[in-house]
Amino acid sequence: MFRLLTTISLFLLSSLLYAQHPVGFYSKADLEYVKANLTGNALLQQSLASIKKETDPWLDKPVDVPMPKDAAGGYSHEKHKANYLLLFNSGILYSITGKQAYADLIARVLLQYAKLNPGLKNHPQATSTSPGRIFWQALNDANWLVYTSMAYDMAFNGIKKSDRDLITQGAFKPEVDFITQDLKPWFNLIHNHAVWATAAVGMVGIATDNDQYIKLALKGSSGNGSSGFYALMGQLFSPDGYYTEGPYYTRYALLPFMIFANALENKFPEQHLFQYRNAILEKAVNTALQHTNLDGMFFPMNDAIKDKDYTTSEMLMALNVATKAYGVKPAYLFVAKKQGKVLLGKGGVQLAKAMADPKAIPDWFPYTSIENTDGPTGKQGGLDILRLGKGQDQSSLIFKYTSHGLSHGHFDKLNLNLFDGGKEILQDYGSARFVGVEQKYGGRYLPENGKYAVQTIAHNTLVVDETSHFKGEEKIAENFAPVKRFSSLDQPNLLVASAMDTNATAGVRMDRSVYFLQMPNGQKLLIDLLKASSSSQHQYDLPFHYLGQFIHASFPYQSSKNSMTTLGKKNGYQYLWKEAEANVANTMVQFSFMNGKTFYSLSSMIHDSAKLFFARSGANDPDFNLRHDPVFVIRKNASNQTFVNVLEIHGQYDPVMETSSGGNASVQQIGLLQDNQEMTVANIMVNGQALLICESRNDLSKISQHQFEISGKKMEWVGPYALFYNGRKL
Amino acid sequence: MFRLLTTISLFLLSSLLYAQHPVGFYSKADLEYVKANLTGNALLQQSLASIKKETDPWLDKPVDVPMPKDAAGGYSHEKHKANYLLLFNSGILYSITGKQAYADLIARVLLQYAKLNPGLKNHPQATSTSPGRIFWQALNDANWLVYTSMAYDMAFNGIKKSDRDLITQGAFKPEVDFITQDLKPWFNLIHNHAVWATAAVGMVGIATDNDQYIKLALKGSSGNGSSGFYALMGQLFSPDGYYTEGPYYTRYALLPFMIFANALENKFPEQHLFQYRNAILEKAVNTALQHTNLDGMFFPMNDAIKDKDYTTSEMLMALNVATKAYGVKPAYLFVAKKQGKVLLGKGGVQLAKAMADPKAIPDWFPYTSIENTDGPTGKQGGLDILRLGKGQDQSSLIFKYTSHGLSHGHFDKLNLNLFDGGKEILQDYGSARFVGVEQKYGGRYLPENGKYAVQTIAHNTLVVDETSHFKGEEKIAENFAPVKRFSSLDQPNLLVASAMDTNATAGVRMDRSVYFLQMPNGQKLLIDLLKASSSSQHQYDLPFHYLGQFIHASFPYQSSKNSMTTLGKKNGYQYLWKEAEANVANTMVQFSFMNGKTFYSLSSMIHDSAKLFFARSGANDPDFNLRHDPVFVIRKNASNQTFVNVLEIHGQYDPVMETSSGGNASVQQIGLLQDNQEMTVANIMVNGQALLICESRNDLSKISQHQFEISGKKMEWVGPYALFYNGRKL
Repeated sequence: MFRLLTTISLFLLSSLLYAQHPVGFYSKADLEYVKANLTGNALLQQSLASIKKETDPWLDKPVDVPMPKDAAGGYSHEKHKANYLLLFNSGILYSITGKQAYADLIARVLLQYAKLNPGLKNHPQATSTSPGRIFWQALNDANWLVYTSMAYDMAFNGIKKSDRDLITQGAFKPEVDFITQDLKPWFNLIHNHAVWATAAVGMVGIATDNDQYIKLALKGSSGNGSSGFYALMGQLFSPDGYYTEGPYYTRYALLPFMIFANALENKFPEQHLFQYRNAILEKAVNTALQHTNLDGMFFPMNDAIKDKDYTTSEMLMALNVATKAYGVKPAYLFVAKKQGKVLLGKGGVQLAKAMADPKAIPDWFPYTSIENTDGPTGKQGGLDILRLGKGQDQSSLIFKYTSHGLSHGHFDKLNLNLFDGGKEILQDYGSARFVGVEQKYGGRYLPENGKYAVQTIAHNTLVVDETSHFKGEEKIAENFAPVKRFSSLDQPNLLVASAMDTNATAGVRMDRSVYFLQMPNGQKLLIDLLKASSSSQHQYDLPFHYLGQFIHASFPYQSSKNSMTTLGKKNGYQYLWKEAEANVANTMVQFSFMNGKTFYSLSSMIHDSAKLFFARSGANDPDFNLRHDPVFVIRKNASNQTFVNVLEIHGQYDPVMETSSGGNASVQQIGLLQDNQEMTVANIMVNGQALLICESRNDLSKISQHQFEISGKKMEWVGPYALFYNGRKL
Repeated sequence: MFRLLTTISLFLLSSLLYAQHPVGFYSKADLEYVKANLTGNALLQQSLASIKKETDPWLDKPVDVPMPKDAAGGYSHEKHKANYLLLFNSGILYSITGKQAYADLIARVLLQYAKLNPGLKNHPQATSTSPGRIFWQALNDANWLVYTSMAYDMAFNGIKKSDRDLITQGAFKPEVDFITQDLKPWFNLIHNHAVWATAAVGMVGIATDNDQYIKLALKGSSGNGSSGFYALMGQLFSPDGYYTEGPYYTRYALLPFMIFANALENKFPEQHLFQYRNAILEKAVNTALQHTNLDGMFFPMNDAIKDKDYTTSEMLMALNVATKAYGVKPAYLFVAKKQGKVLLGKGGVQLAKAMADPKAIPDWFPYTSIENTDGPTGKQGGLDILRLGKGQDQSSLIFKYTSHGLSHGHFDKLNLNLFDGGKEILQDYGSARFVGVEQKYGGRYLPENGKYAVQTIAHNTLVVDETSHFKGEEKIAENFAPVKRFSSLDQPNLLVASAMDTNATAGVRMDRSVYFLQMPNGQKLLIDLLKASSSSQHQYDLPFHYLGQFIHASFPYQSSKNSMTTLGKKNGYQYLWKEAEANVANTMVQFSFMNGKTFYSLSSMIHDSAKLFFARSGANDPDFNLRHDPVFVIRKNASNQTFVNVLEIHGQYDPVMETSSGGNASVQQIGLLQDNQEMTVANIMVNGQALLICESRNDLSKISQHQFEISGKKMEWVGPYALFYNGRKL
């Protein structure tokens, strides 16, 4: 830490000597590169024409800078947001064209803010502990500072000194003071908000040659580096680049990470910011891109809105900087093509030049199966993405055994989500929020987010005694993470992951293993072994939030006819309507649904007796904030219980041709041949053949030898698990 | 009629003289044209390669002709279906390439059917009054005959005489006898099934040179033309080409209409079949295409499955024949491009040649506002499609005042449906059926179709005393149709339609007028005036089946929290969960929802008191056959009641940029200034300006002069209605 601080002090010193602009978004060299390569590239010309078209009409028109009044979605909110984007684009155009009118526009608008900002009190719609001034929350004020300071820096040489002073003192200083002093605890958080806050303050520092701001941004208020930008780069990512809040917020945090890193690189190139922590920002970008579905949507873990994909403005910016820092990569080209435009920075130009050769762009994003650790040292659990198949037919299973994920985390230890060919099949509800829709609680998180969407029952993992993991208390949840047992991501047709948790519910150990495999005949099976162990009796609920049309259930059930009640009264259960229930015993139950043109069947072993429920979200929802999505729940009362479930992807339906094939499941029987402290052996009959899953309980060594005898035939293997199909090891 | 019969006899005579093949799908001239134009056209080569790829693997492989056993979706059903398509393609390939192997394949498979068919009894899964033999319903047997007879005709010259005789006697005759004798009443229906049945028998007649079959097909069993193909062409369409069962079944019926007409044209060119009844088949094709939404989906009136669009195989065939008969048209080219392939008939080749010039294909389908009459003489009501705006932003309002529409009709007099920019906004449920999915009741219509989907409450029209129109009895419904009052489709920014019904509910007259307008500021409004008149007190329910996310309601309501009951007990009401209800009086209520990126607000005048309900389908649905879709219901108890509703399309939401604008409705107040036997005058305050809707009650003359005075200002107009905005006539 001492060396880091010394280094920072040294490069702050150097900054005084070489104060010159632009240096925030563009370095002088970047700008020369961009200008030299603009002509002759259609995509660059389109991107340039597009921002000109948006910007030019304002060159000779007054820009409204309204008194802050509305929540997100309302006029004043949207106007201030539009203003900072306008100024940023105007800065780019000034840099590229040198046309004074663009600098004048920036000066004119920022002078209006210089009059407005000093008098602002907390926003009238502010409700959070980090209220904003221009906007309802300080986060948006930080967004404003990041963009306007870049605009100011780009136009620096086109704004006269007296105006620059007015802007620095009037537009920027009150906001920086507000963030660093009034909101000091917020500014010093380890959280995506703080990434924005530190980037905002640091970018203003760079734009206005204020070293004090830069220092605050890098080292935090204490000055000792326990908070600030370096601490955020050090603590929010695991060593392999997993962002602890999950992919939805990675996307959001990457922008300030990348853009501030870029500005720091421009100003202090000798510091090699982009190589910091083994190039953690490169890992962060690559991991974020891997955490998307075939359609580019970020996997909706934790608080997430499901229509965010990698074409957002944040990812456009991140890709631009990543390309400048780490070079052109096929994955980046694929994403840039989907984005359909490039940012007119150095990296954007590099991308556009490379994309001029269509053969350089791969047909599919180079997705792979990946295992991420979580936590700054990689010791707070992890996340496995198991990818089966290729191209359009790829299926992705997400197995989540991460830490809580800060304030946007959900109570979902050992959760599963399944995507198949671009479709969400076993869903995470995501978050209950209509961001940007003023009529929906000002675009903020809705009450149903905390009361339903974050609760365990809203996920595909075990709920004990109708109580969420860690009793739904974030402060407790933040202290624990599950532990990985074993995994294997190398065999393309057999992907395996297993983890254990002993903290989510006091006195209950949960072990969950997933075997995601493609059978010799091409069929895909997800085998899910979930073992709950306790010395006392509990109610174990295992929900499957399937998405699709109910097709068939193999068991009789009683459905709600003229009246219907909720599945429970608390911890999210009160948001589920109980549409049907069944009592079953000592059998295999099978439930099939259809999504798009594919059938999915869940086959579940029922040992002793169990209750089954078909439920649907939407109860106790007076403002109609929830979606009405179905869930299938398996309920067991037991102390020790092993759930064996097989989800099968099968068949094909052609609604235009009115034909279907393979609509019946091929799993015929599920049994446990052994299930004790030594080993669990499950036997699954598929298409008349036995599929054996053998898994050690405690000896997880990769070199231990095991054996199991069935019908006089001895199966032998090395390591914590093995699968045998028709007697042959897979 | 006498002349018609004479004509038929004459051309049957001629057929004996010139029996030659091919003559069913191809005429000899067609085939020469196709062969001469195949090379050098990429689309044709692709289409050829595509069917070769499907067909060639079977040339040296046994084809299974299984014993009929399964319902739709099951193996034997799908196999027989695949077989007839295989033979048809093989026939095309034989015709084009002359390769004997294709004819051999056809002969080989048809000889298998020649062994199978004579022994067949009714299909084990048959449930309807028209059971099939190869399939569960006779309709599918007719499909089989249409395709296999074309295949046989194409391969005629490549099959040896002895085999031809075996096939004629064994494969075709038992099926033709079954359809024309065992199912005689069905064969003689006026219904889409009979179109298939007559085409099947007629096409076999043409393929096997059997004039008796052709005669039966054309004139029906009686021989007097009261049934059969001419009667179907004469009675199923209105003079302007509206098909009485609605667009979903037009699509289905068009194939046998067009393909049999094509064969008749080939065999008897002097009869000018394509010009019959003022070229009714051309009108039918063009009307069918106009009855689609921007995405090509057929409007889901009556029994309809919502994923049928104009790319289905039926429309591919219809377009091919229509082009041959009526020439290449821009609309056909647009559809052919969406279909992405062409049939290798004469019309298909004409289309492919024209499409080689991309400029010939319009950017958008040339949709227009249209008014169709219903019934053979156009006197059984009608249907208006009001189209506002252009290109991607086009909105389409469907106002249905047709006759019942035979056995697939719904009880939905004066129903409205709204589409906006490719999205369904006010929906018709369509039908409850998963066609082709064996697990769902063998792919047949589900019980919930008759009990919910056809009922009045499942539509956007008035339900009196919780009872469906005509008490839900088809036999009664078929005797009546509403009467058009007035309409105007000429002004692109103000589209008007009005109709009246006095039969759907005894003792209640319903008048409904829709004014669909684009305001000077670009905003779109749908003004819906529905007047119920009776001498006695009734419960009037007006449902709006909106599709979208609930955003805001201007009125307080009580929502179902921990338990929920159905909206009612009968006539479809038992399928709706009552999610919330409200009591309101003397006010305007406003309800907003969002669909895609657009807001929609329904503003409703409440005179005296009313109850409002938010409900959702899915109650009493033990097999989970229904979708869970929302509906907003306005309930009034009254004898005379005028409902004034305004649906406004407004605002924009950008989920990626997280911004929204224009999210609040602009309708501020709705009142009735006059509402009596002479005139109804509604006053709608929009954006602070008065929009007056003036409508005559009984004097609907286009030349009558009317006036209305407000605040001392006199409004004057000619005709049954007028709109004034801010004092200015629209």
